[in-house]
Amino acid sequence: MGGVGAHEVIIESPDHDVTLSTLPLKSLEDVLWMFHCRISDLKKDKRLKYVLIFKNEGDAAGASLEHSHTQLIALPIVPKLVHEEIVNARLYYEHKGQCIFCDIIQQEKMANIRVVSENECYICLSPYAPRSPFETWILPKKHECGFAPDGSFSLLAQILQQTLKQIDKILNLPPYNMMIHISPFENETNEYYHWHIEIKPLLTKIAGFEWGSGFYINPTPPEEAAKFMREAQI
Amino acid sequence: MGGVGAHEVIIESPDHDVTLSTLPLKSLEDVLWMFHCRISDLKKDKRLKYVLIFKNEGDAAGASLEHSHTQLIALPIVPKLVHEEIVNARLYYEHKGQCIFCDIIQQEKMANIRVVSENECYICLSPYAPRSPFETWILPKKHECGFAPDGSFSLLAQILQQTLKQIDKILNLPPYNMMIHISPFENETNEYYHWHIEIKPLLTKIAGFEWGSGFYINPTPPEEAAKFMREAQI
Repeated sequence: MGGVGAHEVIIESPDHDVTLSTLPLKSLEDVLWMFHCRISDLKKDKRLKYVLIFKNEGDAAGASLEHSHTQLIALPIVPKLVHEEIVNARLYYEHKGQCIFCDIIQQEKMANIRVVSENECYICLSPYAPRSPFETWILPKKHECGFAPDGSFSLLAQILQQTLKQIDKILNLPPYNMMIHISPFENETNEYYHWHIEIKPLLTKIAGFEWGSGFYINPTPPEEAAKFMREAQI
Repeated sequence: MGGVGAHEVIIESPDHDVTLSTLPLKSLEDVLWMFHCRISDLKKDKRLKYVLIFKNEGDAAGASLEHSHTQLIALPIVPKLVHEEIVNARLYYEHKGQCIFCDIIQQEKMANIRVVSENECYICLSPYAPRSPFETWILPKKHECGFAPDGSFSLLAQILQQTLKQIDKILNLPPYNMMIHISPFENETNEYYHWHIEIKPLLTKIAGFEWGSGFYINPTPPEEAAKFMREAQI
């Protein structure tokens, strides 16, 4: 593996005082288009296997610059966590003949206790086994492995901003990390991986138990977190 | 999997002002014997598969009590990270006919750039791919899978305290996490897993890149960390 890659900073607005949750909706839609454009461009470089887009909001969550921005790191290798998701999604697909994320969406809609919101194209939910309180995921309802929503960026901007506003409201502008998991470039047409956004407010500390076990102690059940989010007055 | 387990707090001294690095050496040896006794006792409960011993030193590293203590969590499942170490150690053993940890010790001694110190029974080193600056491991030089050093607790206390004093000196009493990885109960006589202590000073933040990739950005090469440790005047 060569030491090759890319690191880009996407500045979301010329205005120093806005955040992703207060940006005009049209500007957030433009930011999503920028993610899409940068992924499409970096994909042309055959040395790169993956692009991870992530955001650190607030000093405690690792933001070293105050002005609202998102980062992109392109890698010559598929990240460990994405690889694990893919391996297990493939096993599930081989066993059930269906995408595990599509199945989760269907089951969560039926159970209707961890769903936070949905619109025509996207669903927002508290995952069944969140690593930390108020971890929240946004997924396309239709099976899509890469970040190339057909003209639905306005709906994605809407549900993303609504989710961030709910988190800001009930947790009082917490520091958070946001990560976008897409399919690796070479598997992009696969049928078992489903891109999604993971949002993790920073409310607990990672300590010896977590570092030693890889398990995460989370005092807030996802059903409670989803209820708080749904009831937030934004 | 049932919701069964144990959580114990081991108070290391009646003295409120000592830490593991300033405790009398004989007391530290007693603490190690206590770890051994508690593991042996919990092993009798057939519902338990693993005991993780860990320490959080300093508020930022997750210590909620100031008085020096170590924690123990017994689990009905093998932790994810230990499972990963075991699976890969077994693969290596099947391929090479030798314990990977024994091989690492041998190679590190030959290379002699990441070794921090050693005594008759133990070696302290900066691992080849540390997750964070000054991550440091202590391993028994002889192959041992469980935490049952034959009468060598005094030598373990000596190298552990020396390592913590070095870290305290060069990093100015940093918050840190310490984890002991032992073999799961049911595999305890295995030939490919090798118990060890992992010490992780808290100097960097875990942010979106780490949460999204499972990779860790570490600005300090282990060779440099080991050199600083070796040269620390304690």
